[in-house]
Amino acid sequence: MSAANAARTGKLFGVGVGPGDPELMTLKAMRALGEADVIAHFAKLGHNSHSRAIVARHLRADVTELKLAYPVTTELPKCSNGYRDSIRNFYDQAAAQIAAHLDAGRVVAVICEGDPLFYGSYMHLHARLAPRFSTEIVAGVTGMSGCWSAAGMPIAQGDDVFTVLPATLPENELARRLADADAAVVMKVGRHLSKLRRALECSGRLSRAIYVERGTMADAVMIPLRDKPDDDAPYFAVVLVPGWESRP
Amino acid sequence: MSAANAARTGKLFGVGVGPGDPELMTLKAMRALGEADVIAHFAKLGHNSHSRAIVARHLRADVTELKLAYPVTTELPKCSNGYRDSIRNFYDQAAAQIAAHLDAGRVVAVICEGDPLFYGSYMHLHARLAPRFSTEIVAGVTGMSGCWSAAGMPIAQGDDVFTVLPATLPENELARRLADADAAVVMKVGRHLSKLRRALECSGRLSRAIYVERGTMADAVMIPLRDKPDDDAPYFAVVLVPGWESRP
Repeated sequence: MSAANAARTGKLFGVGVGPGDPELMTLKAMRALGEADVIAHFAKLGHNSHSRAIVARHLRADVTELKLAYPVTTELPKCSNGYRDSIRNFYDQAAAQIAAHLDAGRVVAVICEGDPLFYGSYMHLHARLAPRFSTEIVAGVTGMSGCWSAAGMPIAQGDDVFTVLPATLPENELARRLADADAAVVMKVGRHLSKLRRALECSGRLSRAIYVERGTMADAVMIPLRDKPDDDAPYFAVVLVPGWESRP
Repeated sequence: MSAANAARTGKLFGVGVGPGDPELMTLKAMRALGEADVIAHFAKLGHNSHSRAIVARHLRADVTELKLAYPVTTELPKCSNGYRDSIRNFYDQAAAQIAAHLDAGRVVAVICEGDPLFYGSYMHLHARLAPRFSTEIVAGVTGMSGCWSAAGMPIAQGDDVFTVLPATLPENELARRLADADAAVVMKVGRHLSKLRRALECSGRLSRAIYVERGTMADAVMIPLRDKPDDDAPYFAVVLVPGWESRP
């Protein structure tokens, strides 16, 4: 470590890069990328990082990349101690790698799809590093905003109650919560679509539901859910249930 | 109207300009501002538009500005026919002014704080104009993302149920919904803060609640709600109730 580096103070940026369309990056995200010595990104083992693909055209040639590859845990039930230990160790090690760069006076930007503090993996690093290092969050356009914008679908207005639900909830709880909200976004649809369809019907929301895959991409799929002929859906598909029933 | 203009097709942009910090505008919003012949913005009568202040440094000298000033309706109850008629007429007239520009082949950008289709006034114009004109929504960073990012406060993770509530709800309904969600944002706090405080206490969420005023501005206020000594709050103040209780 040079004397010049030692005099610098490391800084951590949690940078939201938006839902997928590179144009939905903010000016502040661009600045953080420009200032960063190290760009860190999460990816599934053996896969490319979505967030890296979003920023690819803006990466400086001299930037250091740090790929944080999730451990393979598909053989472990999510509620098991084995799964929790494996994930905790992964985040501990990722935070330690970043801390080494910060201790050396470098600026590290962790790039995150959507918004860093809204259902993002970055939060696990933030909880470990923010107490020790200077940290700045760059808010991003969320995936759900990207979806309803691409669909041209007003989602909530006035005194609407809006809720975000994981499709992993039991059917009766999904139905109860859908009926109790004016507007909703259901995430992580994947293999839960047939159950979700029944919950939407039970709650009287099926006729309003819009199914969205790859919302801000050129190959996006956006159709009324009742027109979708099958229950095949990728993990990241979402269902939008617009509110705003009393329009002036 | 010149022959050259007649040959052009008008286009309507609903442009999210983010929560307040001009750096939280997206590249796409910048492009839409660059392409627009007309920039339209909502404002309270006699007040400057917040969205115009956000984009001010990026407005071209030759752009046409269209200020859409809300009618004064403070003397009318919100549920009255008088209020509804006044607001409906206002949106009808605003849409007609924009339609005239679009019919003349101009590109009109309606700039919106936050995200255009998430509790935004633009939705009223969209409902009136999207059936007749080419329309594109530019998703924006929401006000609530700006708030939790400025506070460095992870809001929701994993299978958390997240909800957005207006503080206008009755106290028992606020308490029930707060207790039923893992994470929440309460909007439009204003004169409802003492009621909201009781609902947070009743639902066991008061100790986690963060009070935020002017979230992304230089003079932001962010404090634990239990440390706020009074119940004075502006209309646009929000309260964040972070979820993510089971951190790996």
